[in-house]
Amino acid sequence: MPADAPGVKIANTRALGGEVILYDRRTESRESIGLALATERGLTVVRPYDDSRIIAGQGTAGLEAARQAEALGLRVDQAVVPASGGGLIAGVALGVHGIFPDCTVWSAEPNGFDDLRLSLDAGRPVPHHGAGSTLCDALLAAQPGDIPFAVHRDHLTGGVALDDSAVLSAMRTAFDRLKIVLEPGGAIALAAMLSGAVPGRARVTLVIASGGNVDPTTCIRALNAPPLA
Amino acid sequence: MPADAPGVKIANTRALGGEVILYDRRTESRESIGLALATERGLTVVRPYDDSRIIAGQGTAGLEAARQAEALGLRVDQAVVPASGGGLIAGVALGVHGIFPDCTVWSAEPNGFDDLRLSLDAGRPVPHHGAGSTLCDALLAAQPGDIPFAVHRDHLTGGVALDDSAVLSAMRTAFDRLKIVLEPGGAIALAAMLSGAVPGRARVTLVIASGGNVDPTTCIRALNAPPLA
Repeated sequence: MPADAPGVKIANTRALGGEVILYDRRTESRESIGLALATERGLTVVRPYDDSRIIAGQGTAGLEAARQAEALGLRVDQAVVPASGGGLIAGVALGVHGIFPDCTVWSAEPNGFDDLRLSLDAGRPVPHHGAGSTLCDALLAAQPGDIPFAVHRDHLTGGVALDDSAVLSAMRTAFDRLKIVLEPGGAIALAAMLSGAVPGRARVTLVIASGGNVDPTTCIRALNAPPLA
Repeated sequence: MPADAPGVKIANTRALGGEVILYDRRTESRESIGLALATERGLTVVRPYDDSRIIAGQGTAGLEAARQAEALGLRVDQAVVPASGGGLIAGVALGVHGIFPDCTVWSAEPNGFDDLRLSLDAGRPVPHHGAGSTLCDALLAAQPGDIPFAVHRDHLTGGVALDDSAVLSAMRTAFDRLKIVLEPGGAIALAAMLSGAVPGRARVTLVIASGGNVDPTTCIRALNAPPLA
């Protein structure tokens, strides 16, 4: 994990029995570190997004939500999903489109780190500008993975980018109304929907709220933010 | 609702279309207010705990949890449940005992407001002393209802009482590990379990975490408390 990962993420991973190796995200490459460890110890590298099995696994979230909507007699016409390397959104898009083929699918990314939005515009994976900073520490992958992007190209409608204030307000709304703890990156799709950043007039929107690794200090900032709804 | 109910509870109820009538819990009786309103408007009073249908409805939480445990091959040997008027714990005890008849069932109440613990000791419903104060604004009923206590007598093992510091720490643990927002009264059974207040050496404990009506200021206090696990 990056040395600046939330303390609660590091502590919980260790408490669950994981060995955590920290690196500097500005000067080191986790891919190189992972490959070296795998070679040294005879391990298998599981890539966090550029792997069709990871995409399929994460996609079960979209499939499950679409099936539940269908059972309720709802037609999902819009889905909004957080994106970094793009594995989750690729899987969710596949899962949702299996049941609702006409559903639009939108990525939500932090301002300045919106490589998926830029890549959709460019028609190929391109990096973000990495300008400024963001509270969304889990959404910093430099560009979409090749395997997920092959799905994005066919299944995504477009992308939007959000600033920290919208993200904090969405976290506050999740506290107040949904009673769930979301990390900034986990709240960004909710921010995109509630702030009106996603265009169109959907009747039924599926929002993926994934990730709760947030330190108390950031939680407190969110609790002091104005709610979005 | 009492005029000192959490702001988020009042606001959310109104946002969902409810009409909220506030009263002073020290000088007024919600039973009298409810009865007067029902008479005036031709309404039906739904008592929050002293009603076998409410007990049955709340008991589905215990039944569902017990069935899930059974499906996982687990035997629940201890359950801990928050208690105020005692409807929830009566229903949960019935639901759990339907599947695990030997499971012990413990009530968790705030220090000074532990009328169910006192009633179990006395063998009949008696009031708490109401001494001091508690953050658990939802657990202030003066004594167990007659209908729930008829269940408690046969199905409960005993009760424990917790102070605010244990409750705040359990809320913090729920934030860190479970990623759910609990109000103080909703976290009290978790506090009872994690603090070791519940005696015995259970292998599988069912904890009911119910209620997330908590204002940001109390959330922030919890986030600054030491976690319990």
